[in-house]
This record gives sequence, structure tokens and C-alpha cells, in this order.
Amino acid sequence: MGNKSIHYTLANERPGPGLPPMFARYKGMVEREICQTIPAPDQDRLPTLLQYHLGWVDRNGGSVAVASSQGKALRPTLCMFACEALAGDPARALPAAAALELIHNFSLIHDDIQDRDLERRHQATVWSLWGEPRALVAGSVMQSLGDLALLRCAQLDVAPEVTLRVSSLLTESYLEMIEGQCMDLGFESQPRISVDDYLGMIARKTGALIRSSLQIGALLATDDEGATAAFARFGDYLGRAFQIRDDYLGIWGDEAATGKSNDNDIRRRKKSFPVVFGLERARGAAREDLRRIYAQQELDDADVLRVMTILEEAGAPQCSESLTQESASRAVRALEGVDLPAWARLEVEELVDFLARRQY
Amino acid sequence: MGNKSIHYTLANERPGPGLPPMFARYKGMVEREICQTIPAPDQDRLPTLLQYHLGWVDRNGGSVAVASSQGKALRPTLCMFACEALAGDPARALPAAAALELIHNFSLIHDDIQDRDLERRHQATVWSLWGEPRALVAGSVMQSLGDLALLRCAQLDVAPEVTLRVSSLLTESYLEMIEGQCMDLGFESQPRISVDDYLGMIARKTGALIRSSLQIGALLATDDEGATAAFARFGDYLGRAFQIRDDYLGIWGDEAATGKSNDNDIRRRKKSFPVVFGLERARGAAREDLRRIYAQQELDDADVLRVMTILEEAGAPQCSESLTQESASRAVRALEGVDLPAWARLEVEELVDFLARRQY
Repeated sequence: MGNKSIHYTLANERPGPGLPPMFARYKGMVEREICQTIPAPDQDRLPTLLQYHLGWVDRNGGSVAVASSQGKALRPTLCMFACEALAGDPARALPAAAALELIHNFSLIHDDIQDRDLERRHQATVWSLWGEPRALVAGSVMQSLGDLALLRCAQLDVAPEVTLRVSSLLTESYLEMIEGQCMDLGFESQPRISVDDYLGMIARKTGALIRSSLQIGALLATDDEGATAAFARFGDYLGRAFQIRDDYLGIWGDEAATGKSNDNDIRRRKKSFPVVFGLERARGAAREDLRRIYAQQELDDADVLRVMTILEEAGAPQCSESLTQESASRAVRALEGVDLPAWARLEVEELVDFLARRQY
Repeated sequence: MGNKSIHYTLANERPGPGLPPMFARYKGMVEREICQTIPAPDQDRLPTLLQYHLGWVDRNGGSVAVASSQGKALRPTLCMFACEALAGDPARALPAAAALELIHNFSLIHDDIQDRDLERRHQATVWSLWGEPRALVAGSVMQSLGDLALLRCAQLDVAPEVTLRVSSLLTESYLEMIEGQCMDLGFESQPRISVDDYLGMIARKTGALIRSSLQIGALLATDDEGATAAFARFGDYLGRAFQIRDDYLGIWGDEAATGKSNDNDIRRRKKSFPVVFGLERARGAAREDLRRIYAQQELDDADVLRVMTILEEAGAPQCSESLTQESASRAVRALEGVDLPAWARLEVEELVDFLARRQY
């Protein structure tokens, strides 16, 4: 590995910003809401699979001391935040927040099956423990529980028309998310993927649900269409910043922090942003090597290191970071015209800074 | 194979009743409605997978001359029928009917992955042609399109409160359906399944969506809760009659008519009704043989024939038929207290007769 690799490995050791306070503020409420939608474990043990995936219990249904395997709950946090920032009662956004988290987790369970991933959030994946058929069912149940969670809006004095609009935004966005997954699967077998193709794919796969989280939160607080549209744009840029950072971490991230295997993305020949950029930008022998290695069925350690070096020499890490930063700035600017209290404006900045600079 | 097997093979050659006219009446409308929800094929070809599964196009997206691979569209037909029978405009039930068919087909695509089935409706299954990851995504998209189809209710002058109730009935019932699939998967590894366990499982796996089809159709026609509840009960018995007949056909059905491999259910060691009944009822050597064969990893032709003989000697075919008939009669009686026009009463009888005696 060349000097640059060492440089980037060191760079990862700078402590990144911690989870902003807004995550802690909503987490408990969202978990209680999700809890209500998941049925008690019965003979078929399906609820245990769901609770295990959410990091609430171990594989035997026993309690866990430290919930290290829980996700960040980004989407519900965004939804509740948008609602509260626009002077709405965040509790009104709870059913939608729970639905968003359940649907996000449905996509993770199915993604792990598709990608044959053995680990997620520092623990064995559902399919790797219970087999594919059960994991498939668990994912579908998670999706349905999400749909069901949303319908609790009606109990919170949300007008039926608004609930229907929220429901339709949610469904459209997770359809977009699934389309994005499908495009991503297709990319694996296509030799030429442009950076633009790639950005279009992640706008669906990652962006859609992040956008709708914010849009739905806004919609539950206000009938100001301009504010809702601004939060949607905020979500589009935030989603891009989030995913490009994720892609960066998938190659140069610290395994202990991300909970995923470090060279996973390259070893699995994933066409993440740095690789798409590298394929477009590298020239001569580097380009040929990159294409040849990505056309192989299996990659060994030397292949993974060669790919990392090529990407680093092509400037992929810097370009990933600058695209993340640019998207983060655009996200902040998208909300400039919206009338927000000072605390919310500050939290927007903390959030964007965290997502663009996180180590996990 | 003993005489009894020959007897039952002959019995299958009696022509069964054809598809009742109500199926033809709604089919075109429902297909057009579903068509609107499925996006046009694009570069990732996902819509082709969906259209192929629905029997509209061949595996290359080309048109098909005879739509022999289309299903019966039972659920949308039941939904539209319930609405029309209760003097509602069946067009009001179209979005729900499309949603029900899409959700049923989502479950078939995922079922085929779980069961490793190579054929469905006389054609290769989606996963066997496009691989598991794509089939998984195609199934999820089908489910989401179902959710989305339902929301078109709002355009048809259905009150938002009613749309939300329909949406919640639909989601709850497909959650029940998925739970049933999960119980069914669990049955594979359990040596003792009682007939009661089995009936509880099919009430979810098959019954829930059939019940909600009728319930939703009724709800869109009337605010008479008694009538809606009667249609729900009708659906419960109809679902049981339908599934027990399906199980019978899965062993003694004519392969050319059902579109499935004849000995599929036994060879795959499926614990369908005749087998559960046989395991409960058979005694002595027959019982031991049945248990031993079902504990094997693989079954050869002789094993399949031996199982068929044991089931026939235990009276499983007769018992399946009588339970189907009994459920069919109860289904008809469930609607006795509802004020229905003569044409609808006649069609109920035709439908029940068809479902209980069909050959496919």
C-alpha cells in the first residue's frame, strides 16, 4: 500500500463529531412507538428476529446490556426534527417516524440477503442466523408493520386527508428506494457506470427515504407548502452527503467504528462512489487494472490493495470528501428561506456537520 | 401404486366446473387498474419482471398470444363482487381490488423463492429466471405498488376515513398472511403438527387476504357493519375450502390443469392438509413409514408413491373433500342473513361450487 493509503488510514483516526443531541431527544419516544407495533414473541419466534435486528434482544430473545447493535435512527430523528423545527408537536410525527424506521430496517434485512452480508451493526445478520426464507419473511413483516404504524396517525388527531398524503409520500419514497436498490443490483453487471448514473441511483436508494422523512415531518407541522418543499430539498442534499460519506467509510472507514468489514465494499466489487469515480477518471495501466480486477469473480487481498491505491492515485478520497462537503453546504442553504427558530438552525448545522464528518 | 391411487387419478379426470362468470366480468377492469400502477419498462427491466409474473409479457418483455400463465384473480373478483352484491358501484372497489391482486402476487414471488419452486402457472418462476436478489426486489415492489394502488381510492370519491379503514384492513390482513407463511415454514421442521395447528395456519396464510377482499368490497358499498361482518365470515370459510382443495390438488391434482408438478407437495415434504391428517390418523407401519419418509432429506418416486398410498388408506382424500364441502356450505350459510339480490345469491353458490370442485 502506498503512502496515500497510510495517510487516509491516519486521517480516519481523527475523532469525528459525536451523534448530535437531537438523536438522543427523540430516540426513546420512537422506540416506544415501534415497540407497540411489534407483536409479542410467540411460538414462531418471528418477533424475536425483528427485535434482534433492531438491536433490542440477543439471538435467543434475551435482553442486551448495551445496545451497541442499534442504528442511529436517522430517519425518525429527521422526521421528528422537521416537525418540531416548524413549531409542530413532535409527538404528532411519532407514527410516521416509527414507520420510517421500520421501513428502513425492512430494506436492511433484505439488502443483507441480497448482498450475502454476514455482519451488520457489529452482529450477525438475520439471514445468516435464521436462514434466507425466514429473513425474507421478517423483512416483509417489518415493511408491513411500518405501514401499520403509520395508520396510528388517525389516533393523534391528524386529519385523514393529511394521513393519506403522508401515507402516499411514504409509499412512493420506499418504492423509489427499492427502485434504487434494483438499479444498484444492475450496476454490478454493467461495466460502464457514469458518476451521473451513480448519483441518480443513490438519490433513489438512499435519498428518497431521507427526503420523505423530512417532508413528512414538515407536512405534519404546517400547511406551508414552501417550507415542506424546502425540507424536501434539504433531504435531497443531505441524502447525497450521507451516502457519499457512507461510500467513503465503506473503503477507508475504521472497521471497529462502522461495524462492517473494512474492505467489504471493494472485495464485494461494489460500485460505490469512489470506484465509479475511479473507473471514470483513472487512465492507462491503472484504469486497465481496475477494470480487470472488477471483472474477476473473486478478489484477494492484493487485488483489494491495488484497487485502493488506484482510487487514491485518481484522487477518489478527496473527491468523495469534497462532494460530501458541497452537498452538505447545499443542504444548509436549502433551508435558508424557511423561518426557523435559532435552536433549529443550530441543530441543522450540527446534523449536517455530523453526517458529513462521521466515522461510522 | 394401489387401486385407490388409480381411483383418485380417474376421479380427477371428471371435468370440474369452469370459472364462474363473475371472474370474466371484473377481469378487464382490474387489469387496466393494475396496468396503471406498474411503471413502463426502463433500463433496469424491473417492470418486465412484474408484467412477466402477472402473465402479461414473456421473459423478454414481448407480448404473449394466449395468457395461459395468468392467475384466476380470485381476490379482486371477490372484492368487486362483494361491493356490487351490496348495491355498491364496483368501480369504487377497483383500487382495492388492484391492491389485493398485487399483494397476493408479491406473496407468490417471495413464496417461490422460499420454496425454490421452478414453475408457477405453467411458466418458469421469476427467481429461477432472474435470480434471487432481483426476485426479492420485484416482490417488494409488487407489495409497494399494492399499497400505492389503494391510495387511488381518494380519486374515486371514497371518504378519507373509509380509505384509511380499508388500508388498515388490507395491511393487517397481509401481515396475517405473512405470519401464516412463517408458521408454515416452521411446520417443516416440527415433527408433530395437529390438524388444528394446520387450520390455524391456513386461516392466516390463505384465509386472511380472502376474508379482507370480501370485507373491503363490502365496506366500500355499505356502512352496514352486520353485512360487512357476514362477508368476512363468508371469506373465512371460503378461504378454508379453497386451501384444502388446493392441498388436495397438490397431491391428487392433474399436473396439466394445475400448472404445478404433480407430486411436488409430497416430494417437497410439504405438510399440507392430507399429510397432517395422515400423520394424525395413520397407525402402525403406515404411521412409521410416513414419519420416516418425511424425516428424509430427499424423497424418491417410491417414497412419494408410498406416501400417497398411506394417505389414501388413511382416508385423507375423502376427508379433504368432506372438509372442503363442509367449509363451502358454511360459507354459503354465513351470508344467509344478508339482504342480497337473487343474481348475487346465485353467484355466491356458483363461486363456492367452483372453488370447492375446481381442478386447477
